[in-house]
Amino acid sequence: MKIGANYIGDSRCEFTVWAPSHDEVAVQIVSPENRVIPMQKDEQGYFNVLAEGIEPGTLYFYKIAGETDRPDPASRHQPKDVHGPSEVVAHSTFNWSDTDWSGIPLEEMIIYELHVGTFTPEGTFEAIIPRLRELREFGVNAIEIMPVAQFPGDRNWGYDGAYTYAVQTSYGGPEGLKRFVDAAHREGLSVILDVVYNHFGPEGNYTSNFGPYFTEMYKTLWGMAINFDDKYCDGVRNYFIENALYWFQNYHIDALRLDAIHAIYDFGAKHVLREMAEKVDALCECTGKKFYLIAESDLDDVRVIREKDLGGYGMDAQWSDDFHHCLHTILTGERMGYYQDYGTVEQLAKAYKKSFVYDWQYSRNRKKHYGSDASEYPGSQFVVCTQNHDQVGNRMLGDRLTHLVSFEALKLAAGALMLTPNIPLIFMGEEYGEDSPFLYFISHTDPDLVEAVRQGRKREFSYFHAEEDKFIDPFSLDTFNQSKLKWEKRQEGKHKTLLELYQHLIHLRRSMPALKTLDKQNLEASAVEEDKLLFLRRGSMGTQIFCVMNFNDKDVTFKTSPGGIWQKILDSADSRWMGSGSTMPEKLLHEQEATIHPQSFALYELETLAQ
Amino acid sequence: MKIGANYIGDSRCEFTVWAPSHDEVAVQIVSPENRVIPMQKDEQGYFNVLAEGIEPGTLYFYKIAGETDRPDPASRHQPKDVHGPSEVVAHSTFNWSDTDWSGIPLEEMIIYELHVGTFTPEGTFEAIIPRLRELREFGVNAIEIMPVAQFPGDRNWGYDGAYTYAVQTSYGGPEGLKRFVDAAHREGLSVILDVVYNHFGPEGNYTSNFGPYFTEMYKTLWGMAINFDDKYCDGVRNYFIENALYWFQNYHIDALRLDAIHAIYDFGAKHVLREMAEKVDALCECTGKKFYLIAESDLDDVRVIREKDLGGYGMDAQWSDDFHHCLHTILTGERMGYYQDYGTVEQLAKAYKKSFVYDWQYSRNRKKHYGSDASEYPGSQFVVCTQNHDQVGNRMLGDRLTHLVSFEALKLAAGALMLTPNIPLIFMGEEYGEDSPFLYFISHTDPDLVEAVRQGRKREFSYFHAEEDKFIDPFSLDTFNQSKLKWEKRQEGKHKTLLELYQHLIHLRRSMPALKTLDKQNLEASAVEEDKLLFLRRGSMGTQIFCVMNFNDKDVTFKTSPGGIWQKILDSADSRWMGSGSTMPEKLLHEQEATIHPQSFALYELETLAQ
Repeated sequence: MKIGANYIGDSRCEFTVWAPSHDEVAVQIVSPENRVIPMQKDEQGYFNVLAEGIEPGTLYFYKIAGETDRPDPASRHQPKDVHGPSEVVAHSTFNWSDTDWSGIPLEEMIIYELHVGTFTPEGTFEAIIPRLRELREFGVNAIEIMPVAQFPGDRNWGYDGAYTYAVQTSYGGPEGLKRFVDAAHREGLSVILDVVYNHFGPEGNYTSNFGPYFTEMYKTLWGMAINFDDKYCDGVRNYFIENALYWFQNYHIDALRLDAIHAIYDFGAKHVLREMAEKVDALCECTGKKFYLIAESDLDDVRVIREKDLGGYGMDAQWSDDFHHCLHTILTGERMGYYQDYGTVEQLAKAYKKSFVYDWQYSRNRKKHYGSDASEYPGSQFVVCTQNHDQVGNRMLGDRLTHLVSFEALKLAAGALMLTPNIPLIFMGEEYGEDSPFLYFISHTDPDLVEAVRQGRKREFSYFHAEEDKFIDPFSLDTFNQSKLKWEKRQEGKHKTLLELYQHLIHLRRSMPALKTLDKQNLEASAVEEDKLLFLRRGSMGTQIFCVMNFNDKDVTFKTSPGGIWQKILDSADSRWMGSGSTMPEKLLHEQEATIHPQSFALYELETLAQ
Repeated sequence: MKIGANYIGDSRCEFTVWAPSHDEVAVQIVSPENRVIPMQKDEQGYFNVLAEGIEPGTLYFYKIAGETDRPDPASRHQPKDVHGPSEVVAHSTFNWSDTDWSGIPLEEMIIYELHVGTFTPEGTFEAIIPRLRELREFGVNAIEIMPVAQFPGDRNWGYDGAYTYAVQTSYGGPEGLKRFVDAAHREGLSVILDVVYNHFGPEGNYTSNFGPYFTEMYKTLWGMAINFDDKYCDGVRNYFIENALYWFQNYHIDALRLDAIHAIYDFGAKHVLREMAEKVDALCECTGKKFYLIAESDLDDVRVIREKDLGGYGMDAQWSDDFHHCLHTILTGERMGYYQDYGTVEQLAKAYKKSFVYDWQYSRNRKKHYGSDASEYPGSQFVVCTQNHDQVGNRMLGDRLTHLVSFEALKLAAGALMLTPNIPLIFMGEEYGEDSPFLYFISHTDPDLVEAVRQGRKREFSYFHAEEDKFIDPFSLDTFNQSKLKWEKRQEGKHKTLLELYQHLIHLRRSMPALKTLDKQNLEASAVEEDKLLFLRRGSMGTQIFCVMNFNDKDVTFKTSPGGIWQKILDSADSRWMGSGSTMPEKLLHEQEATIHPQSFALYELETLAQ
């Protein structure tokens, strides 16, 4: 069921809203004139009217039971913020120039995650456009934007969105997003939109005035769970499923990143994500274009990506945090909170081989067994990173890896990421070692809520044993401004070198058959734990790579037996990459002794197969 | 991890209890002498001691933190009821005579559900034994006993069990159950035990004194959900998984019926039932005997029986209430509560063909879509019935079908049940049209709780718009006594005839190839809704049956085209079955017109295939 205000043309607009327990809902036009348009209710609890004399830009509320005016839960635009009226948007008038666009296939994606508000000084969609060519030339081919659903004020990561269909006004609203997507497509870049289907933001969400969007059966981190399987859930499921289709159809979004699906509680026989995937499949079938669903999940559960016919959710891919946690703990030595479950090079080797490190082991942090075996699923179904908005921004000081480890280690991290058989995600600024933090910021208009958020963050940081006096106020404008990228840095010194290393690695990944193919069958990874060495071998027959990564803080001399003769193609300790100079042999032979510099990696290509 | 008091022999007993947040737990022996035996805690939170000088029959509590004495959550016996001490039981001393017993294969099962307390005047395991031969000769081959886990007092359906491992004292305790199972096996009858893993009874459950057995994340009908996926869940999962193994190993139980698994909330990557099925598989492997897990679920979700490798729970079978609801509504005309979703003969035809009638249709009662397509699963994975303890006992007056419909309709129901391609379950007394009610009864010792249960039942019956003054007090001894079978009736008049009809149907089901094979591929079922006729055809090639069921309250004349020539083998309207005489032809030809009596069925066997 299509919901919201659907502008049809010729001053006609169809309004549809789900309000099953109400007897009377009307459209209350508030601009350009004041008038009330009665609606008719159907059996499923949807109120509907095809209204005449409505132009795009019309502002309206829904009038519930003749008295309460509330914005449209499926509002397309909230020009006066979350408490204001909703706006009628005409989608058909945008002049798309991407008619030939078919999107980047999932298995080729190199994702660049960015936050619209802090990626540029302006903090708008429009301001991103001039940087798209540079991003494409750098090598990424999919831009993932953090959520744009309308949130209160103009500073927010986006996870406090109260209007799942509305595009944040301060970013440029619906028109801005379309112009951005169109420009990205012209540059050959896919656009992935981060969407939040597990909770609503705490301010400006009036869905409960309309229907049972929440259930008391389950609790989440954010309070009552959204009602995906309790009585009347069909209307709620429709709200989110239609939303997924809405972005694909009206904004030409190529893929959705579904936030924290482990908090989408649905015990019914058809999980809402499976139903969503079915509907998206139908859209793909009908349009001939593939749209992707990529789930963020912390369950390490293959059910998320298992085929729908086998009771899976049928997501195209899912995030896998294990790779990040392994690498982060090895590089930083951190072991607080959820990092206590990681820290060995062997685990990192397992992350390469199986994507999930936890496949039903006991987790000290979770205090239970968890995870499942993902070996049989190709790497193209897992998104991995060395940094992302959460891993950086949920630290009290918003530290990027730049703030925590040496330049050598940053290069090693880049290598480790780009050599995975999974889909790599780069967090904006990571590629040139940005040294601005990425902090947590909000601009709620309710002072009590602001204070509650402050206290919540403090509690969260007690987890990391952080010092109270270093606490950074998420409401402060300065916190937001500090988090903006210093884009010009990418041309300077080590920043430039790191950028070039990333670029070179991406080039290798996209051109070498052993790296391009994201299977795990032709992959071997092993660790020498006491030396903190990791050996990675990928590819088959004549086209193979072999990589030695040294996570030790000192030189390590080792002997390895990859068989055959190998030609060095990259060493992060090379002076080319501002290292102290490579000690690794140009040609690596079977059982040859070699010495590798601390926090460096050396990449070899097979020259001659073993006899 | 094996828990509870495991008597090893030679006056030695190993005590193990999970109490992860405690520093000190000891065994407090209270009889024959008073002494305290300290225990050692391991990393997983289990306290353990191998104690000397302990004889079977020893009574004990666990002393928590040096002060609180509590019964063992895994107590094997509570001779002084739920608040009293636990008893050490020696399992190895029982003299089993069933060494050659291999159990009835699932696909051959004809289940007889009984409640130990009301099946006989004595209400004990021992008193059932003399009736086993009669049951076997009648034709059933699996006795399903309602839960025997220790509950407060001596009157309860069993779903208020507080000690999952202890056998109800008033039924005869551990020894009584063993003697019963052994006797059943000697008679060639499998024993299915109903176990409750979704909640604990409200009185006498002290598990929370020991560990986090409950989670605040989810709610169930019975309050807080059992902790199957939250922090520290491993100890809780172990408690229930070991319980399943315990019954198989120590009591030679052949199958478990897992109560209401839709209230077992587990969002983790390995559902606790899947883990349980893995462990049971290992036991089967190791013993060479097949033990079955049969789940009661109201989700109509094939995930319950899907293979474990495909993310299913791997249950061997599951209950399917749809068949009951279809038949009950057609026969009684009732449409209250959950019966509002049923009522057509077409739905019953679908139940024959697909087991689940709801395979993602909208349910008016649930107010949402629900269910999944089970067509591809064989009938041997579904247990169906026309009556059971819930469907009878959860009516205010405990009415059996006997109280609601005519004798003709009882015979029709028997036919409808025995001709399904699923596993039939008969509720004690159903086979001879018992006219005692089966009421809800309790004997809690806490007066507030008794009152709360009374009020709860009243609320439940408001659902059926029942009259308040007819309310029956579940605490009254008379309520319990009224529910006892009048076994001698089976030899009288219509009771005897119904019994013989059931017996004959079971004989046909067990001997005719078309009925024995529980596949749904060779099954056609269709309805003529306006006439309330159902046509059922089963079998392949030369061995086929064809059945006409008339759910109408008047004669129906019809023409049907089964092809070929069919020989009548049974007509419930026959005088043999105290009917008014069959009007159906002895030989049914293609497109022949025939008339069938109200509420009757006629069964034909293929004589000559169509040309």
